This record gives sequence, C-alpha cells and structure tokens, in this order.
Amino acid sequence: MKRVFFFGNGEAEGAELGKVTLGGKGAGLAEMTALGIPVPPGFTIEAGVCVDFLHGASLDGIRAEVESALARIERATGKRLGDSEDPLLVSVRSGARSSMPGMMDTILNLGLTSHALRGLARASGERFALDCRRRFLEMYGDVVLRVPRHQFDRILAEKKQQRGFNSDVELLATDLADVVRQHEQLVRQKTGKNFPDNTREQLWGAIAAVFRSWDNERAKTYRKLHHIPDDWGTAVNVQAMVFGNRGETSATGVAFTRDPSTGERKFYGEFLPNAQGEDVVAGIRTPRPLSKDGSGLSLEETMPEAHAELLRIRDILERRYRDMQDLEFTIEDRKLYILQTRSAKRTGFAAVRIATDMVDEGLISEDEAIARVEPEQLIQLLAPVFPEKEKEAAIKDGRFLGKGLPAGPGAACGCIAFTAEHAVAMAEEGEPIILVREETSPEDIAGMQTAAGILTTRGGTTSHAAVVARGMGKTCIVGAGEIVVDAVHGQVRARGLTACEGEWMSIDGSTGEVLVGQIPTHPSEVLRVVLEGAMPIQESPVAMAFTRLLLWADARRRLGVRANADTPQDARVARLFGAEGIGLCRTEHMFFEEQRIPAVREMILADNPEGRREALAKILPMQREDFLGIFREMKGRPVTIRLLDPPLHEFLPREDEAVRKTAKELGVAPDVVRERVRALAEVNPMLGHRGCRLGITHPEIYEMQVCAIFEAAVLALREGVRPKPEIMIPLVGAKGEFDRLKKLIDREAKRIADDRVNYKVGTMIEVPRAALRANRIALNCDFFSFGTNDLTQLTYGYSRDDAVSFLPIYIAEGVLPEDPFASLDQYGVGELISLATRRGREAKPGLKIGVCGEHGGDPRSIEFFHSVGLDYVSCSPFRVAVARLAAARAALAGGMQASATA
Amino acid sequence: MKRVFFFGNGEAEGAELGKVTLGGKGAGLAEMTALGIPVPPGFTIEAGVCVDFLHGASLDGIRAEVESALARIERATGKRLGDSEDPLLVSVRSGARSSMPGMMDTILNLGLTSHALRGLARASGERFALDCRRRFLEMYGDVVLRVPRHQFDRILAEKKQQRGFNSDVELLATDLADVVRQHEQLVRQKTGKNFPDNTREQLWGAIAAVFRSWDNERAKTYRKLHHIPDDWGTAVNVQAMVFGNRGETSATGVAFTRDPSTGERKFYGEFLPNAQGEDVVAGIRTPRPLSKDGSGLSLEETMPEAHAELLRIRDILERRYRDMQDLEFTIEDRKLYILQTRSAKRTGFAAVRIATDMVDEGLISEDEAIARVEPEQLIQLLAPVFPEKEKEAAIKDGRFLGKGLPAGPGAACGCIAFTAEHAVAMAEEGEPIILVREETSPEDIAGMQTAAGILTTRGGTTSHAAVVARGMGKTCIVGAGEIVVDAVHGQVRARGLTACEGEWMSIDGSTGEVLVGQIPTHPSEVLRVVLEGAMPIQESPVAMAFTRLLLWADARRRLGVRANADTPQDARVARLFGAEGIGLCRTEHMFFEEQRIPAVREMILADNPEGRREALAKILPMQREDFLGIFREMKGRPVTIRLLDPPLHEFLPREDEAVRKTAKELGVAPDVVRERVRALAEVNPMLGHRGCRLGITHPEIYEMQVCAIFEAAVLALREGVRPKPEIMIPLVGAKGEFDRLKKLIDREAKRIADDRVNYKVGTMIEVPRAALRANRIALNCDFFSFGTNDLTQLTYGYSRDDAVSFLPIYIAEGVLPEDPFASLDQYGVGELISLATRRGREAKPGLKIGVCGEHGGDPRSIEFFHSVGLDYVSCSPFRVAVARLAAARAALAGGMQASATA
Repeated sequence: MKRVFFFGNGEAEGAELGKVTLGGKGAGLAEMTALGIPVPPGFTIEAGVCVDFLHGASLDGIRAEVESALARIERATGKRLGDSEDPLLVSVRSGARSSMPGMMDTILNLGLTSHALRGLARASGERFALDCRRRFLEMYGDVVLRVPRHQFDRILAEKKQQRGFNSDVELLATDLADVVRQHEQLVRQKTGKNFPDNTREQLWGAIAAVFRSWDNERAKTYRKLHHIPDDWGTAVNVQAMVFGNRGETSATGVAFTRDPSTGERKFYGEFLPNAQGEDVVAGIRTPRPLSKDGSGLSLEETMPEAHAELLRIRDILERRYRDMQDLEFTIEDRKLYILQTRSAKRTGFAAVRIATDMVDEGLISEDEAIARVEPEQLIQLLAPVFPEKEKEAAIKDGRFLGKGLPAGPGAACGCIAFTAEHAVAMAEEGEPIILVREETSPEDIAGMQTAAGILTTRGGTTSHAAVVARGMGKTCIVGAGEIVVDAVHGQVRARGLTACEGEWMSIDGSTGEVLVGQIPTHPSEVLRVVLEGAMPIQESPVAMAFTRLLLWADARRRLGVRANADTPQDARVARLFGAEGIGLCRTEHMFFEEQRIPAVREMILADNPEGRREALAKILPMQREDFLGIFREMKGRPVTIRLLDPPLHEFLPREDEAVRKTAKELGVAPDVVRERVRALAEVNPMLGHRGCRLGITHPEIYEMQVCAIFEAAVLALREGVRPKPEIMIPLVGAKGEFDRLKKLIDREAKRIADDRVNYKVGTMIEVPRAALRANRIALNCDFFSFGTNDLTQLTYGYSRDDAVSFLPIYIAEGVLPEDPFASLDQYGVGELISLATRRGREAKPGLKIGVCGEHGGDPRSIEFFHSVGLDYVSCSPFRVAVARLAAARAALAGGMQASATA
Repeated sequence: MKRVFFFGNGEAEGAELGKVTLGGKGAGLAEMTALGIPVPPGFTIEAGVCVDFLHGASLDGIRAEVESALARIERATGKRLGDSEDPLLVSVRSGARSSMPGMMDTILNLGLTSHALRGLARASGERFALDCRRRFLEMYGDVVLRVPRHQFDRILAEKKQQRGFNSDVELLATDLADVVRQHEQLVRQKTGKNFPDNTREQLWGAIAAVFRSWDNERAKTYRKLHHIPDDWGTAVNVQAMVFGNRGETSATGVAFTRDPSTGERKFYGEFLPNAQGEDVVAGIRTPRPLSKDGSGLSLEETMPEAHAELLRIRDILERRYRDMQDLEFTIEDRKLYILQTRSAKRTGFAAVRIATDMVDEGLISEDEAIARVEPEQLIQLLAPVFPEKEKEAAIKDGRFLGKGLPAGPGAACGCIAFTAEHAVAMAEEGEPIILVREETSPEDIAGMQTAAGILTTRGGTTSHAAVVARGMGKTCIVGAGEIVVDAVHGQVRARGLTACEGEWMSIDGSTGEVLVGQIPTHPSEVLRVVLEGAMPIQESPVAMAFTRLLLWADARRRLGVRANADTPQDARVARLFGAEGIGLCRTEHMFFEEQRIPAVREMILADNPEGRREALAKILPMQREDFLGIFREMKGRPVTIRLLDPPLHEFLPREDEAVRKTAKELGVAPDVVRERVRALAEVNPMLGHRGCRLGITHPEIYEMQVCAIFEAAVLALREGVRPKPEIMIPLVGAKGEFDRLKKLIDREAKRIADDRVNYKVGTMIEVPRAALRANRIALNCDFFSFGTNDLTQLTYGYSRDDAVSFLPIYIAEGVLPEDPFASLDQYGVGELISLATRRGREAKPGLKIGVCGEHGGDPRSIEFFHSVGLDYVSCSPFRVAVARLAAARAALAGGMQASATA
C-alpha cells in the first residue's frame, strides 16, 4: 500500500485522497500542483504512518518509498541533497487533517551538511549559506535534539550585542560563521555528540520529530479546545526549499482571498522582503501590505509581476475551493511559489458575510453557507463595541495609548495582565482581563482563553496571537509597535502614558485602538439593528447577512428554538432574536426581588398553612403582573413557567445583621428568624426539600403561583392576547408527585379560568429516576422538558458548586474528555435523555419534549438533541441565534442517529 | 359467574377456590365444613365483589344469589331471619386473602328487628334478647350509620353508674330495655331516621359497610405496614349466629394449636364463659385457660366434653393445614362451634421452632420450613434480654411493679409514653419508648410501631396489643391487671410504686415482668450460643432450631451472603453468623479513631503532597494493623476494602473550641485551621470532592491505604492465612477514574507484594452514570458492588439527611408507596441495577457483582437482587441470618425474573 505521495512538475500523486490521508497542507500542495500553480516539488507521508509510529511501529516500512520520492524531487529540481554544488535543501513540515496553526514542529533548510554548506555558499554566497546553516542548527537542535531554543537565541543575541547590531541582517558572514561554530559547540555539549552531518540521518530524525510533535502538550491542548480527535495523527510534508531571503528580489508572505476580519471581498495580506516564512508568522518584523496603500512599499508596487500572478492564483483557488483561502507564498529571485493554501480562519463577522456573499456570487448553496458558519461564531456579532462618543471623549481626554492591527473584532475592557499565568490567576478573582504581551506563543493559550481581550505589540494579523484569537472569537489587537511592554516593571508605556499591571485598559479589536482606563462597552451593530431598530437592516451589511443566514437556517431546522426568560424584558429580547416561545420562566427570580422578599420571608416564618397563605396573598398580584407582562411580550407564543424550585432557606438571610434586619421588618425576635434558618438548613440543599417536594408539602405556594398564572392569562385574553401557559412541575421523580400537583393545577385552572385558557401541564425531567420512569410519568403529562443541569449533576453525582475542586483537574489530566456541564455527556446523561424520550413517547405518542438546561445553547449538544428527536431546545435569549443555526446544521448533517446505543 | 358460596351441613361450595376468592376466613369455614367440623352455616361473598363495589359497581348483581344462600341458611338452621319465633340472627364479617386482625368492621346479631326481638325474647329470654339488640344497635350504629361508638358507650356507662353497677352483666332486662330505647333515640337524633327495621335493609347496609371498611384508614395503614396490595379487596362472610353468651353453659374462646410465643407443642388458648367473641378479642375481661392449670377454672375442668372435642379438632386441622392454627370457637348450650381457623401469628421464636419441629414430625418439608419463617422474624431471636442477676437485683431493690402476660418476647427498656401521639413525639427526640396503655386499639398502630416495648393492663395474649406486637416483633406484655394506668395524672401505679410519663421502665416480654427504672439488656440465648459458645448448642432448642433452619437455607440459596464490617471484632461476629466474606470494610472509620485523627488532620492541613505523605506515614502502621486483624479473623475469606470515601472536611473540627484544640495539637494558629475548614466547606458534600475524586486529586492517600492493605496481606501470608483483599474504588462514574486508580493499586501491589497476594480490584456502582456506563467500566474491573444507599439518593435526588422533611409525608400520603431507603425501589434504582449487571457481564462475562448498601439486609430487596442474578449481598453482621434465609426463600420462590421490565 502506497504511503508516500510525490507532487511536482504539474504531477500530483493521490491528489484525490484529500485531507484525511494527506493532511490539509499535503492535500493543498497536491491540488495546487495538479491545477498548474507553481509549487516547489516534494512529497507527503500520510497521517496513518504517524499513528502507527506513535503506537511504536518503525519507519522502516516507508524508507524505500521516501528514497524514491526524494529522487524525484532531485530530478525535478536538478539538485541533490547534500551536494557540494548548489545542494537541494528541504523543509519537513507537519500537516494534520484539521489546521492546528503553530502547534506542531517544522524544520527548514534540512540537508545542509558541512559538505552541502560549501556547495550552497558557492551557489548563493557565503553569508546566505551560513545564515541558512544557523537557522537549520537552531530548528533541528531545538526540535530533534531537544536543546532548548533560548540557548541558541542567547548566542545570537550576544553576537549582535558584541557587534553593536540591532537586527540579524546586519551580521556579516564572519559573525555568522562564529555563531554557527558556537551553535555546533552547544549541540556537542548538550547532546554529547556532533551535530548529525548525514542528510539521511537528518531527514529521518526530522520526520520522527514532526510525528512526535502531534503529541506535544500544546498540540494536545489545542485539540481538546477544538474537539480534534487524538487519533488522527499528522501527515509530514517534505518539500524542496525556496528562499524568500535570497536578497531584495526575494520575499515571503501570506495572503487571504478576502478580508478575514470583516469578510469584505478584497485581496488582503502582507509580506516581508528578503525573509523566510517563519519571520512573517512569528511577527518579528512588521510586514508590508500586498496592495497599494500609499506607502509605496506594497508588493503591487515593488514586484508588480509577482503581484499579478498572485491575483490570478487567488481566483483559481477560490473557484476551486469555493471558500476563502489563506495562502503562504515565497518569491525567490522574482519567481513566485505557493507553499500552502487552506481554508482561512475568519472572524464571526467574516464567516457570516462570506457565506452569504458566496451564495450571492453563485459559488455555494444556502445549505453550504449554513455549514460554513460555526454557530458559536455568531456570538461575536453580538459582542459589545465602544460607543463612538465615549471613545472620542477618552481620546480627547489624553487616554489614547496607541494603535495596532485589528485582529479580533469587538470591544473589550479589563485589567492588564502581562503573563498568561497572571491572567489566569486574576481571572479567578473575577476580574475581566486584557492580556498584554510583546507576542504570544502556544504556551500562552490558557491565558488567552481566559482573557476578555488580547494585545500584542509585535506581529501581524497572521501572527500567532491573531490566528488564535480569531479562532477563540476573542477581541484582539496585534503589532501595536509604538507601545512598549516593560514586563520587568509591570508597565506599558506609550505617548507619555503609563499603565501598570492590574490597571484598566480598553481595546477596540475592530479599529486597533488601545486606550487606558475603562470605557463602557455598548451593543454591537447587529444588536442595535435587531433589538433597537437603530437603522434599517438594509443599511447594515452585517445585520443583513446575519438575518439572511438565520432565515435560511430556520427553513432547514426541525428543532424548535425557545428561550429561557424570567421577565418581560428578557421575553422581548428572546422574541426579537427569533425565539418561538419561552422554554423556561423561573418563577423564583420573581421571589427574590427587593419589594417581594419581605412577604416571601413572612411566608416562610409562618408555621402554618393559613399564615403562609396570608403572606402569599401579598405576592400574588406581583406574580400576576409578571406573567401578564410576559404573555403580552410573547404575543401568543407558548410560555413554559416552572413552579417554585429552590428550597425555602435560600430566601432567608444568613448573616447576623441581615437576620436582625429581617426580624425587625417582620416584627419578630431575631431568634425566631435564626431558629427558622436553623430548622430549614440542609446538608445537601441540591438533594433537599425543594421543587415539587415543596409543592406537595406546602401546596399553598403552588396554589398562589398557579392562581397568578391563570389570573394573568384571563387578563391577557381580555386584551386580545391568546396566552399559552405551559406549567412545568420541577424535580418530579415519581408519577405520584406529578399526578398530585397536576390535579391542583387543573382545579385552579377550572376555578379561575373555567376552561377559557389553553394551557398544558408538564414536568422537568431532571432526576435520573424521572428519566427511567418516563413511561409512567408521561401518562398524565402534556410535555417533558429536560433540565440537563440537574440531570448532569445527579447522573454524575457532581455538585456544580463543589466540582471546581476536582473537575478542572479531571479535564486537564484527561480523566474526563470534557466538562459535562459545558457540553452534554452524550453517553451517560445522553442515554437517560434518549431513553426518557423513547419511553415518554411510547406511553404517550406525540408527547412534546424539549430541553431547558444550559446545554440547550451548546451547538454540539443541540446536534445530539436533534438526533434523539426532541421537539425544541431552550437557551438564553442571546444564544437563540446560535441555537437556530446549530439546529439547522444538525438537520443538514443527518437524520436521527441511534446515539443512545453509542 | 358464581360469586356467593354457601357452606353448612357438611356441604361447602367453592371450598377448592381458597383464600384468593373466599378470603382467609371464608376459605377456612368452607374447608372446616367439608372436613365435618361443626361450623354454623353461612355463605361467603367473594372478594372480587368488594373490588367492583369500591370502584362504583352496584350490589344488585348478587342479590338473587344472596337471597338463595340466605334461604339455605334458614333451611339448615330451621330459623328465619326476622322471624317472630326464635329468629335467625347472622354475623356479617370481613375476611381478606391475608389476615388483617381487627382492621375491618364486623356486625353481629344482624336481623334483630323489633319484630325479631320479640321472637328472640320468647325463645331465649328477655334479658338476653335485649342485650343482643343493644349490641346490634351499637355495632350497626357505629359501622353502618356512622354514629360514633363512644356515644353509645356513654349511654351504657351512665346506666351502669345510675344503677351502681360495675359490669354489663349486672344490668337487668329493664335496664337494657332503657338502654336500647336510648340507643334508638340516639340513632334517630344523629341520622334523622329510625333505626332500619327491615332485615334486608340491615343486611345490605352491613355488607356494603364491611366492603367499605377495606378502605378505612386503619386498614390502609396496616396494609402498607404489611405490604398487602390495596386491590385485593375483602370477602364478606354472612353466618348464622351462635351465642356464647347464652348463660353459664355457653362460652367463647380462642385457641392456638401450639404456643405462639415459644412454639412449644402444647395446646394453648383461653376462653370466657357467657360472653360473645368480641369480649375475648377486646380483652375487656381477663379470660380463663383452656387446659388445667390448678385454678379449677379451665375449660378442661368446667366443660370437659367441649375441651375433648376441641383437642380432636385441633389434630384434624393441624394435619389438614400442616401449620399452627389459631381457632375461634363458641360453645352454645354445651355445643361447640368453630367460627374461624387460620394460620396463627407467632413470634420469631415460635416460627423457627415450629418450622423445624414440623419437619421432624414429618408434617412439612425443609423447603416449606424455610417458606414458613419470615426472614425478619429471625431478628427477634437475637433481640436482647435482661440478665437474670440484674433483674433480681432490681426486684430486691423494690422496683418490681407487677406482672402481666408475656405476649412479645425480648427485653425492652425505655421511657414511658401514655398515648401513641406522645410515643411518636418522644421517639422523634431519640428516646426509646415503652408505650403503656390500658388496652390498645387500631388507632395506636403508629405509636406501637415506634415503641421499643408495649405494656397493657387489660386483655389477653390474643388481644389487639398482643396480636399486633407479635406481628411487629415487638417486646410486649398484656393484661398486667394489677398495674393502674392513670393517664390523667400521667402515672402508673402498683405495689406502692409510681412512675410518671417520661420516666424509665423495663419490661421482659418473655416472662411478663414489669420493673421501674433502667435495667441493662443483654444478648439473647441464640447470641450467647452462636457468638459466645455459652452452652452446647444441643442444650438450646431455640439456637438449635435457628442453626438448622439456616443450614437448610444455605443448601438452597444461590446468593452469597457477606457482611459489612470495619473492625476485627465486627469481622468475627460476621463470620460466626455465617458470612462468607466481608462485602464492605469502610476504611474511613479507621481514620476517625481518637488516636489517629490528629495525624489525619495534620494531613489535611498540609498544603502539598509531601506534607500529606509525612502525616499519612503515621497512619500507615495503624491501618496495616487493622487490615491484618481483619484478614486473621476472616481466615482466607474475601475482604472487600473500600478506599477512603468521605470528603476531607468531615475529619476537621467544626466548633470553635475544637478548632482551637486541634490548632494547639498541631502547633498552628487557629486561623490556619479555620481557613482550611472554610476552604474545604462544600455546598453539597454528598456530591462533592470525595471518593475516587479525592483519590485522583490526592493520590498519596490511596497510596498509603493500598500500601497498608498489601503490607498487611504479606504479614498475614507469613502467618499462614491466605488473605483475599478485594480493593474497591468508591464513587466511580467514568472509566477514566477507575483505570487511573486501578493502575495505582496494581503498581503498589507489585511493589509491595510482588504478585504473592491474590487480590482483586473493583468498584462501587453508586452514581447513576456508573450503572449506565457499566459496560465500559467493567472492561478493566474484577467486580462491581452496588452502593444502593448512594445510588438511591442520586437516582431520586434525595439527600437522606434532608429527606426527613418530606419523605415521611410522601409515604403517609401515598405519593410514594414506601421508603426507598428501607426497601429497594425496584423500578427506578432497580432498573439501573439490572441494567448495570447486564452490561457489566456483557463486557466481562462472569463479572462478580454484589450489593453493599443497607438494602443488602432487606428481605424484599434480597429477592430482587436474586432475581437480577447478583452473586452476593452484604449486610450488617446482625442481619446475616436474615439475608441467608431471605436468599434461600428467593431461590425457592422462583428463578430469574425479568424485573427490570416491570
């Protein structure tokens, strides 16, 4: 079986095999070669070899194939590896099925033995050859020989210091010869051996190291974050080197076929003359634009032929891939080579815009547009911005610190942290964080994840910081070169301003502006259009794209989408975001309000039903008003109202002062309150006297709530609204509980509304027993709604409040693959859900079933809910758009799966 | 379809239908009639009619059958209902499939219209007729017309007072005529109508009332207590009256074919001359013995023919029923009639003794003997007794209050309560209770249930108190006539002694002795034989019977029986009771000991693994010693050791003084301890950082425990014991948790014992997810043990600590049929158990599976565990005998049931 695939000279083996076998980079190189695009020749070792290798298999099985492919590179380039006359050098790069930018290792200039060094010097000059050798020693020394990179860096830095130079390019050949000698000595000293001087030893060492880099910590973290399976492995690409650093007629750069920030249809990118690719990605020098921008430094102006060629290739690739591409290119002596093409990472704004634009351009279908936008990306479009006025005032006020490249849109305001560790620690204290670094590296991922915004002073929009921030949907500014980060003193400085670690900073990821101090953030354009009607939607391309995409989604999804909303305000937002009803209205939130809590406490302190009824009578009109407001806002859409759920002690004061205040308000002795607090205290409140248990032992509470619901419904009817209350009994675990309370509700409905109100009575399925006994409970029931938060707590036996002491460790150490509160555990909790759905519908065909836990807004969980055949999900109003899109994607991805048997 | 069955004159319809159709009483009457035993003629209306009637059906469908059966009674007796010449009177009695003594209603003397009254007076004298009429008015008035009984009682009491009489028998005909008139007036006044004077109206009113009494509160409580289904219904028996109160040649009585207290093979019973049956059962007059006892009052002496006839009937019935019978008889004018026969209630002592005796007598097989003893009854044989010396000292000390009839063996010591309500309230405060009443009635059941012992001053060994106490296995003394209960002053008095409510009393239910003050209780004879070897077993008939029965059980059961034991002492008791291993050794109990807790606290206060290891090193030798002791006691039987389960904060002090003491002991500031207490506090400790979660975050704790286990095992090996440790990881919910800790255990085993110890590693299945994922978890696992306590808590979402605020209400009001912590919920929790068993064994055929929750000692739960195919149950050492017997009964009752689909 063939495992090594050659590409070059317009011929590409296995181009049809695609990413799964060749990895993303390998597939792109093969495809481009086949399309006639100039690509340096090379070969790809398929990802399966990596998997076998990491399981302990030897690489011997591919030696012959590699040798033969190498020979073809040599034939294609007319150069030989290790030759003393103009030798062939190769790069050895990773390339997984899914892009994992910067997470795995790369080695350039391989083949540069001492013998070949002389050949390269002869062909391209001594300084160039020594610089290549230096870079090769550094990369190979670090990646393969495990000599820490910074020890090489120190040698180079000392040389520059000694010579009084600021940049590498100032170093002379003699300086570099000295650096190379010292590098070689360092390797000898650290490894006890000479640097390998045999091209084959170098090659196999590099291939093995790149395979191994699939399992380094950074890569594992990245995969966990992006849900990439650990068993995919990476392909390895060995390719003839071309040099962007062969003088001023050479260059290297990166291009996007559209703007990855906004999605606008314009060619976008940057390059560095006389540089190798790693210089651009690392963001060490500030790159130049591709297109004319008035600076006179653009590629369009300095190398017009190469620029024209790039434009031509851009069109070929967009037509071929029907998606925005991210290209790496190198110009060697004015000749353009494309080294990589891949689907470009993009912001949520860009994703939505490009998807709808491409439909209009006839490139993709509406179904494909839906598949192109990750539901989570929509959240970016709703992310806050700074109001222009406030920002201008701050600038006038002298708080403008500087400007960088906008790399992750949105406005963020937080406390400055200079290291990832500090960011994590400060975030744990509850502070929003702006992570400020000269540049970021994969070690910073945890800190970036935790930050509200990221600012770097070096690197471009394709630097590590920019790429990762875009992937995470973080507000980000990169390359703010005028700002000095003085991590030693814990300060940033620019324009005479200073800000210390822990002080406030505001960054605008859409414009690149950095300000000191706090600027209040405001709703985004999409929010202003959708919620406030601030402008006609036609005038906002982004709101238009957002809305069109969601309408396409609605036409395709089977799952209904509702929102969790406790107030008329929430209900309005939910409706404007397209919620088809309220899936969870938590009535206890109404109990906690300042005006009401005294009556609630009076009720709790009463030690008989009559006393409780008297106090509840005071709450009744307020609850009625709440429900009426919600019915009005929902304009006839269903409203699922959950009866009181928390235990009574949650409403009582705890601190002694509050106890005294309450006692005074209620006109009782403090000891009376204290005694009640003591009597109601619970060892495990989560498993205590709450939900329907309270409804059964204190029926007067539910009576009042049900009365308020039906009185409000009758009032709404009079106003011409046709309310659809769906009354939900929480925490049911046995049919007896449900039936008893259903009777109470039906009785009150009859008494108050006399059959005029169209209502339903259902239950939450949130204790495991309810799921198991769903066939019994369903008999008398109109609907189920899974409370996946509690169901997850009880199925695992985890208290969310307490799990923080072990759950993060579980996830970090791989005991659990992920946090079951973030994304539904499809195997344990999921089985209970599919089982309850099946049993509930067996007992009562057509039983309506939804979800109202937080998982209702998580795209992967939504896919599961779709697959088990639920009727709707309910999530927070701000996630309704995410849920609509996720539901459509689930419907497009496939029908019902037998997930329960997984 | 025939629904009414006649019996009489040696002819019995439907005798072959048995209890299910005819009820226990009806089946007995039919059977006895067929056997030629003298039974007054009558007919039985089958229980199905009751079920239909209670669901709203009319009784019209059986009218013709009843009339025809009634006509047959009239033909058989030669009397006519309502006749003015020696009229036929009938009794109307309940009779369910399972005996429910005194719970439902009975009406005697029915048919005694004003017309018939004259006929009866003519035939049997005016006084007798009026007394019958009085009784009929009272019973019918109470049961059918709902005039409270005590209002009739008051009329009678006032008449006696007015005439200066102490007993009913002193009343003259004129007095009774007056009482009858007043009774009739009371009925008119309360119901607005005359007392029904039509025999058919009386009859149908009585039949309907008896059917309805199936659903009175007392009956429902009794059924719940005895797990009798609510949908059985009761049959009704209508039978010609015979009169034990027709003068001194008449009598009524109760007989047992063996001694219901000890099981000895002697005829046993009591009677009252010139009385109706209710007088005996109610215990209003102190009855006389059947057999000669020196008093000259026995039936044997006063009516020798009737006594001889009874002895003959006794033999017929024991041969026929092959079980101890409880007979009701009436002698009317020297002619003996048997009114009822049924299997007699008996103490645990009697049950075991009779079962083994009957095997020896060739009456029953060993299988039947096993079926005859309720496992729970064995607990009585282990119940405490008073040591003779202590009791003698108390008597010498003048604390002897009096003597009654021993009615429920065992010694009990507790605080006096004079009402059932007080008993319940005082028991809630944690006091042991002796319920002291003149006599008990069905209203007292809750109080009797809660009491440690029951004392009545009236009634015999067949009185309500005696029968119910025997059923409950309670220590009980009845008819202690010399003791005066002064409930008004809250005192008991006798022999110059006084004891107030709340003061201590000691009662010996095996001898009938009542003493004031506390006497320490000591182990029973069975315990002394089995655990202490206090005498050769041949010398103790009860220990012999106990042991034989259990050996028969062992030969039949498939389930293994282990014990939960945490110390060498417990392990010894477990082994002597026949435990085949230890199913749960809780290692945390070893952490709580006074000598160890300082080191445990030092470990918790250390904030790094090294500090913890140092403290743990101090605990290691103690844990090792514990395990060695247990291995020695168990002599090579398996010992399942659960690694540390509770959260760390359980080991820290709470009260401020204890905090300061701990701080001082550990040489740290009190704030250090306080801070640690605060940091470890949990909102829901049951769902918190404990079990394997602790083992994973603090591996050094489990390392120490595993090290102690293997070091102890190696030491045991050296002593020639072959220890079988089975290490159990608690609270596993995901395979990752188990695998990680299994690795740790295997590593330590290798390190310390180097493969010399035969050990297993398994897990508790106690979180619902573990049950659902059993197929995954099993892969790497040697055994499962269900922790049914936690599994029940999580499946229902009930905290045992907190459920007391609602669970009793749930059970009282029928929201749940019973307490799922007392007997396993076979539908919800049970489904998880059967599912986990199936999945575990699918993944790993032959996986060993047991139970170590408290349900492991509950007979009905054991039947379930047998049916789903578990390998063993584990329970407290004192319940091992119960479990052995229950397991045998389960095996005899049937094979594997598909309970999970129920």
